[in-house]
Amino acid sequence: MGKILLKNIEVQGIRSDILVEGQYIRNVAPAAEMTVIHEGAEVVDCTGKVALPGFINMHTHAGMSMMRGVGEDMAFHEWLASIWEIEKDIDGEYIYHATRMACLEMIKTGTTLFNDQYWHTPMAYKAVTEMGIRAALSYVICDRNDPETSEIQKVECRKLYEESKSWSDTVVFVVSVHAIYSVSESMILWARDFARENGLKIHIHVSETEKEVKDCMEQHGGMSPVEYLDSLGLLGPDVIAAHTIWLSDKDIEILGKRGVTCVHNINSNLKLASGYRFRYNELRDAGANVCIGTDGCGSSNNLDMLEAMKTSAMVQKAWRNDPAAMPVKELFQMSSANGAKALGLNLGEIREGALADIIIIDTDNYHFMSPASFEANLIYSAHSDCVDSVICNGRFVMKNRVVSAEREILDQAKKHLNNIL
Amino acid sequence: MGKILLKNIEVQGIRSDILVEGQYIRNVAPAAEMTVIHEGAEVVDCTGKVALPGFINMHTHAGMSMMRGVGEDMAFHEWLASIWEIEKDIDGEYIYHATRMACLEMIKTGTTLFNDQYWHTPMAYKAVTEMGIRAALSYVICDRNDPETSEIQKVECRKLYEESKSWSDTVVFVVSVHAIYSVSESMILWARDFARENGLKIHIHVSETEKEVKDCMEQHGGMSPVEYLDSLGLLGPDVIAAHTIWLSDKDIEILGKRGVTCVHNINSNLKLASGYRFRYNELRDAGANVCIGTDGCGSSNNLDMLEAMKTSAMVQKAWRNDPAAMPVKELFQMSSANGAKALGLNLGEIREGALADIIIIDTDNYHFMSPASFEANLIYSAHSDCVDSVICNGRFVMKNRVVSAEREILDQAKKHLNNIL
Repeated sequence: MGKILLKNIEVQGIRSDILVEGQYIRNVAPAAEMTVIHEGAEVVDCTGKVALPGFINMHTHAGMSMMRGVGEDMAFHEWLASIWEIEKDIDGEYIYHATRMACLEMIKTGTTLFNDQYWHTPMAYKAVTEMGIRAALSYVICDRNDPETSEIQKVECRKLYEESKSWSDTVVFVVSVHAIYSVSESMILWARDFARENGLKIHIHVSETEKEVKDCMEQHGGMSPVEYLDSLGLLGPDVIAAHTIWLSDKDIEILGKRGVTCVHNINSNLKLASGYRFRYNELRDAGANVCIGTDGCGSSNNLDMLEAMKTSAMVQKAWRNDPAAMPVKELFQMSSANGAKALGLNLGEIREGALADIIIIDTDNYHFMSPASFEANLIYSAHSDCVDSVICNGRFVMKNRVVSAEREILDQAKKHLNNIL
Repeated sequence: MGKILLKNIEVQGIRSDILVEGQYIRNVAPAAEMTVIHEGAEVVDCTGKVALPGFINMHTHAGMSMMRGVGEDMAFHEWLASIWEIEKDIDGEYIYHATRMACLEMIKTGTTLFNDQYWHTPMAYKAVTEMGIRAALSYVICDRNDPETSEIQKVECRKLYEESKSWSDTVVFVVSVHAIYSVSESMILWARDFARENGLKIHIHVSETEKEVKDCMEQHGGMSPVEYLDSLGLLGPDVIAAHTIWLSDKDIEILGKRGVTCVHNINSNLKLASGYRFRYNELRDAGANVCIGTDGCGSSNNLDMLEAMKTSAMVQKAWRNDPAAMPVKELFQMSSANGAKALGLNLGEIREGALADIIIIDTDNYHFMSPASFEANLIYSAHSDCVDSVICNGRFVMKNRVVSAEREILDQAKKHLNNIL
């Protein structure tokens, strides 16, 4: 069983030593006070560095990492049509290379777990496990109201779920329901039952655009998407709802009461002009579990959680006309512990007994030369290149900014780029 | 006279060679077609890299680089009071070290010229010239309606202007008028005349907050800050107005007609909740010269122009509900050529005969692995760590991300940090 001893690393303001043993954080103690046996450990001096739990990107489409800027300057529904046009032609090999590049970007920006929704999942699984980070991968139900497609997707979803039983414990199988406008009611109900019977989480886009809400109200007797999904018995603490931008007070009450996880994807929402008034305070106060995501590179156009955290806070302050909106402490909760909670995983904190997903931040640069807190400087001043090293599941996946497969991944990506043009 | 030959570098989509001779760009030609004599030049192979004009940060307070996060979570006027409290105690030596650190950050993020407004200007001058980039440095008039202070500041301003006549030609002297709420009318008029008599630009904060506009209308018979300044004969193409967030249609007409430069500082505006509806399209169409700035680290909290460009565009798209708002091409204009125009300098473009302020972008990373344009990927996907090398005034100030003074600057900054606590 591998051991890593991180020496003299700051953990919540205290200079500490962290012992990682196997997959887990075995001990966290003030520096040089460690009493557990750490003989045989790889010792890494982390003086001047800070430990944080790895970021958890709770909504993305990793396979879109080579689609940055595709459909630039388009509104949501026009953009989605152009993406669907491209997606018809991509294959598993493309997804493999794109997902590896997405994992490379996530590692370099401090993300150790992502909640994904994309196609060719077995190839994404191959990429993720090779790269050594965690993911929640899904089968994406998206029948576009075609009964024949529904039947095919039921079979495929069941088959992938069976396959997932032999997956590594670093990857969780989730049932994705694309959205109410792209999935038939009968299929939403099927997904609900299938997920609940098998104890799986459900990942769905909800109330992303004003159009989605208007169309839903027209088609479902004045019910909003949240009310409609609640009427179908879909909403619960096992549901991860991406976006939730256009919400009524009643929607917020429902999402809170059901304990739904709501994932805020500010960059995508801004860039596609989907809406920017994410009702963070209200959702949090109602009892929803609020997380942060980047969305896919087709709309965001990167997978940088620190950037998403900063922009989320900045835009909250602005539209609420409240410079104290979305405090730094809560941003860190939203980007780690809340994601772990949503997926029911024992991680998201630097704590004895938790799975060892740790990022090491280098503070020896101009971003941190200020009297402000480490957290404030990390979010408001720094960039993701301050992420010096990344441990996931007890193993280094990046050390001193080096990811061993980087060169090969970029070369392969270059080769496969032509496939989507 | 030093010569640099940048070989195989992309300039506006064409693989080119650029010859820098002395301070100037001597020749730009398709790769290997250069006919001018480049013997004796330092030859740098830039295959896979792109040349851009250095960014021009048109509104900042460099001396605040060690004040990141000071007054966190405060609204503008409360924040400003807390900053003024700190500024009472800072001295020239502090400013020297803070300005060097600001220059370090600007170099590492691709900025080669900044328009500054801060105290202890001779020490800022020393820092800037040592670091090798350009600046517009100013005397800051801020009498807070105290006649005694006015008289002192007139003398000091004249004295600094005289001193500036022996400055390096890489630094321009500008007259700063802090804002209408912090400078008496008689002093605004004095600054106007002093600047015009000596052919100097005027740098002023205008309509940054709603409060500023309301207070002005109360005090000046219903006139907005723009109308008030216009009634004083201040506005013209020699005026650089920072912020201009709260503008009426009439204000925009005036700013356009007078050819004023308006500097958008999105991060500061968001973070202090000053306002986010910067009326870019209207100002541009009216004839104003729109530029981008970061504001000082006290409010922004960094000096990263690429981040400012991205956030500016994202927020425009969102509040205008138009995903095509603020196109990429215009962002580059605002961040280079428009700044050069405002300051009347022969730079801001990669062009024969222009001053050689060139940044070299490395595209061999995941940010650029997409079919989108280089410009779109640089703004929407990449970070400033893609800035590989920086040439200012014909000399490398960063090569392969190494700024020679970096270690010493950080060590000195650490030492001086205590002074502001």
